[in-house]
Amino acid sequence: MSYKAPLKDMLFNLRHLARIDEIASLPGFEDAGFETAQAVLEEAAKFNEQVVAPLNRAGDVQPSSWKDGTVTTTPGFKDAFRQFAQGGWQGLQHPVDFGGQGLPKAIGAACIEMVNSANLSFALCPLLTDGAIEALLTAGSDELKAIYLEKLVSGEWTGTMNLTEPQAGSDLALVRSRAEPQPDGSYKVYGTKIFITYGEHDMADNIAHLVLARVTGAPEGIKGISLFLVPKFLVNPDGSLGKRNDVQCVSIEHKMGIKASPTAVLQYGDGMVASIASSTGPGAVGYLVGQENRGLEYMFIMMNAARYAVGVQGIAVAERAYQQAVAYAKDRVQSRPVDGSIKASAAIIHHPDVRRMLMTSRALIEGCRAMASVAAAAYDAAHHHTDAEARKQNQTFYEFLVPLVKGYSTEMSLEVTSLGVQVHGGMGFIEETGAAQHYRDAKILTIYEGTTAIQANDLVGRKTLRDGGQTAKAIAAQVEATEAELKRQGGVDALAVARHLAAARAAFVDVVDFLVAQQDPNAVYAGSVPYLMLAGNLMAGWQLARALLAAQANLSEDAAFMQAKITTARFYAEHILTRTAGQRAAIVEGAASVTALPLEAF
Amino acid sequence: MSYKAPLKDMLFNLRHLARIDEIASLPGFEDAGFETAQAVLEEAAKFNEQVVAPLNRAGDVQPSSWKDGTVTTTPGFKDAFRQFAQGGWQGLQHPVDFGGQGLPKAIGAACIEMVNSANLSFALCPLLTDGAIEALLTAGSDELKAIYLEKLVSGEWTGTMNLTEPQAGSDLALVRSRAEPQPDGSYKVYGTKIFITYGEHDMADNIAHLVLARVTGAPEGIKGISLFLVPKFLVNPDGSLGKRNDVQCVSIEHKMGIKASPTAVLQYGDGMVASIASSTGPGAVGYLVGQENRGLEYMFIMMNAARYAVGVQGIAVAERAYQQAVAYAKDRVQSRPVDGSIKASAAIIHHPDVRRMLMTSRALIEGCRAMASVAAAAYDAAHHHTDAEARKQNQTFYEFLVPLVKGYSTEMSLEVTSLGVQVHGGMGFIEETGAAQHYRDAKILTIYEGTTAIQANDLVGRKTLRDGGQTAKAIAAQVEATEAELKRQGGVDALAVARHLAAARAAFVDVVDFLVAQQDPNAVYAGSVPYLMLAGNLMAGWQLARALLAAQANLSEDAAFMQAKITTARFYAEHILTRTAGQRAAIVEGAASVTALPLEAF
Repeated sequence: MSYKAPLKDMLFNLRHLARIDEIASLPGFEDAGFETAQAVLEEAAKFNEQVVAPLNRAGDVQPSSWKDGTVTTTPGFKDAFRQFAQGGWQGLQHPVDFGGQGLPKAIGAACIEMVNSANLSFALCPLLTDGAIEALLTAGSDELKAIYLEKLVSGEWTGTMNLTEPQAGSDLALVRSRAEPQPDGSYKVYGTKIFITYGEHDMADNIAHLVLARVTGAPEGIKGISLFLVPKFLVNPDGSLGKRNDVQCVSIEHKMGIKASPTAVLQYGDGMVASIASSTGPGAVGYLVGQENRGLEYMFIMMNAARYAVGVQGIAVAERAYQQAVAYAKDRVQSRPVDGSIKASAAIIHHPDVRRMLMTSRALIEGCRAMASVAAAAYDAAHHHTDAEARKQNQTFYEFLVPLVKGYSTEMSLEVTSLGVQVHGGMGFIEETGAAQHYRDAKILTIYEGTTAIQANDLVGRKTLRDGGQTAKAIAAQVEATEAELKRQGGVDALAVARHLAAARAAFVDVVDFLVAQQDPNAVYAGSVPYLMLAGNLMAGWQLARALLAAQANLSEDAAFMQAKITTARFYAEHILTRTAGQRAAIVEGAASVTALPLEAF
Repeated sequence: MSYKAPLKDMLFNLRHLARIDEIASLPGFEDAGFETAQAVLEEAAKFNEQVVAPLNRAGDVQPSSWKDGTVTTTPGFKDAFRQFAQGGWQGLQHPVDFGGQGLPKAIGAACIEMVNSANLSFALCPLLTDGAIEALLTAGSDELKAIYLEKLVSGEWTGTMNLTEPQAGSDLALVRSRAEPQPDGSYKVYGTKIFITYGEHDMADNIAHLVLARVTGAPEGIKGISLFLVPKFLVNPDGSLGKRNDVQCVSIEHKMGIKASPTAVLQYGDGMVASIASSTGPGAVGYLVGQENRGLEYMFIMMNAARYAVGVQGIAVAERAYQQAVAYAKDRVQSRPVDGSIKASAAIIHHPDVRRMLMTSRALIEGCRAMASVAAAAYDAAHHHTDAEARKQNQTFYEFLVPLVKGYSTEMSLEVTSLGVQVHGGMGFIEETGAAQHYRDAKILTIYEGTTAIQANDLVGRKTLRDGGQTAKAIAAQVEATEAELKRQGGVDALAVARHLAAARAAFVDVVDFLVAQQDPNAVYAGSVPYLMLAGNLMAGWQLARALLAAQANLSEDAAFMQAKITTARFYAEHILTRTAGQRAAIVEGAASVTALPLEAF
């Protein structure tokens, strides 16, 4: 099943919601206006449609495989990644100083969606490399930056994030990996890390592992965790590759989905790799990133970037599943339309429930894409605006949106990929059809880089309660302003959307008031995920409401597209925003029943 | 991961909701009171926990395999099925005249849940055999009954349902398989059937295929379809097996889940099987079931039984996933409880969102189980009541519930199996954990035996609009009576449930009014699945409300269990019933936007 990048929708968002021309007025982004965006997106579309997308099914059928510590990726991946690197795609958003293109996140996010739609497993390698680059940019010494950044930005080398250990998943306080300072200023790192995406592979010459570990004598808990860069191969002063480091891939996981993406168990410093162990004794050579005991702080920078990107993965896999469902629905002939419009068996897209499934998918995808685009624009302004207050406001807005982009977009991807299978009927359950792969692939997205519950904790704790609900309320006021604009517009679609948006916004404010006033932490966290779903729903619906206004105002530009946007926004309001009533009730009226059942009754 | 049958909950439902002692007062069920139910369920639990459940993972790892027309099932399946047959489990609900035990469906349904929780793939074989038995009982000639029924009821032979063809899935009007009458009264059957569950296997000596085909010269469309019994092996007059019939399994499907259950492509009458072809020429020997051209009618009888059973499969796989999630949540230690109740990392079941996921699962399962139990009791009364009016009322009620048991319980199983993976975090995505299998297995349930949309069409068309909403309104009146009882009970839990039940019932009535008044068929069918979800939600929530009343009244009997039931009912009301507000709005206010987007915009 082929993939066609939704360029029109992406460019509509960039122009009307993310306002790329305003971003291009910020220092450093002078060349990043709409025309640049269009050119970059068209190139990305071509590359991902033609090179990356055709490898998606192969990755499912011939997953990456492990033998004797070495991982061989799916045939075709290595070559595609070489082309990806050569095309400059890894460096799209990264600084020009290190060989990147320095483009805004708003443009980068659209490209990241495309590569993920094309191939979720493939795209994980650059996604994690982006995280490593981000960490080094933030906290790496000049020396580390000089040695590693250009290679990572160019895609010659790749990066990983090493957080999880068998006993330490969501709870990083339990990390046990340790690091011993060496006389030369480096460290020897020891420990076992699991669930390391692309922790070992054959697509690049070297891998820079970013690893959380405790320096000998560091405090217990999260305040004693430091971040290290541990390269697969040591790097000589001239930049050439030296000895193999003492980090070994002892196995990769057998997973339900994203099978082409090797998920490694990495063993650091047990002397299994002879070349280094013989010369210096066991222990993986690592380099401290930033200061000791501040590892979690740096890791959070990487994670925020990665969380945003995983949210985009949700949009991406949903888009791919939706496209496949649409194609099948147009092709598969079964039963007469109920309205009698065709007097013979017709393509199933004529059946109202198939339309409902496709519209639900489309509305969720477009809503989440709009939200992600606006979040990216806020990130760009937060980093490039000349005005400190504007930077701060945009940063606050971005940080509020990150758990929603991650949590809501990935949860919606479960719904859309399930509908994608459902539209196919029995054929959807047959692996050769390909719809099932999206369903299996998507399920990791609500889990890795922080489960939906972890996102919800972040949303409730850091992003909502910490400032007494101020940010949340300020955003609600912006939603209200959009309602007023819709009413001024006055069309039947705008008014319908305004009404549902107002109800959803009121539900959101109710919930924020409830959470802020709540004394019982169990009641707060019992409602955290429903609150995330409600807030994500509202933010996505709000952006579609803004999209409706833009579409109405620019109807003549591309009438069919603009009219479809209006219809989709209205569908979202009527079918998705209306879910918020139940979510509000569950949170506000049902907090106690969540934890009322005694443990022994389970 | 082991399985423990939820006997207490099943027996509670039988006693207080299905009212097994009233069923036992009906003629033919004299020995089927509570004590019998208890004894049978305990035996079933033992058998399924010990013999069938341990084979579940094996079936996923070593699926049934095809070679040269022969299917070899997962190691252990054949022996387990022999024990299943010998234990009399196939015949539980079938007439004593043919070797069955003649027990009520209310008891049978609980046993069917157990075998499906134990092993969804395994349980499909008896499930389809039940359908074949039902069809023969309804429409088979005395001769066919004499030859086949005892063997099927005893589990010596198994049965299949052959509806689907490549071009005819939901739309049976497109069936092309044909049957030619032979001088001896038999037929020769020709055609290709796909998606035939246990269409070929090694677990029984013979297979009775029930096949839809058109007799030469029959009318076009669904009025020209007849039902045939085509045995894998012809049967000699003395009951011994004769020649191999001309039906060949040409392949089995490679599926996302229920991998141990062979899904066959069957080729009828192309002469590939030499033994029969040589003597009589090509063509599969088939025997007409009932009258020509009434095949669909008989098939619907089988399908109604099968649809109910698939609904129970949804409950079953959800229960299994829930049990596994509970075990993991009690075992996995990660992070401190937010309420400070434990000053160290604790089992994740202490975290409110894990509790929310487990309670959501539990409430959905118990609600659907209660609904299915009550539906089964209605079936029993519909068939055994001495009063014709009572029979009719019960039949109407049962028929209203069948699409809900099928549609709602299977849709909820997608939610629960997804939560089951989610509770496991990253481990859930690793196949060895087993949670992913339930997620993959469950997805077929919303598709086969009629997709959720097909169930919804049935609910809207035959069950709601045909009598102008009368049945639906009569049921709503019964719900209202329960609300009144809750208010009389007057406890804080009862009152909370009454309030949410009333709101959900009002939403239901609104939707029924909307559907009945609607002139545009597109608007009716645009809302059909949301209506099914709303109605299923209400019916399950209503039964839990009745359960709450029974638990309050019998608190002293088993205080911990009864209190858990009350808490679960309240959770359901606050967290699940509250979803109906959004569903109502989507149906009543959002009908037009479902089909508003022109086809070319997709």
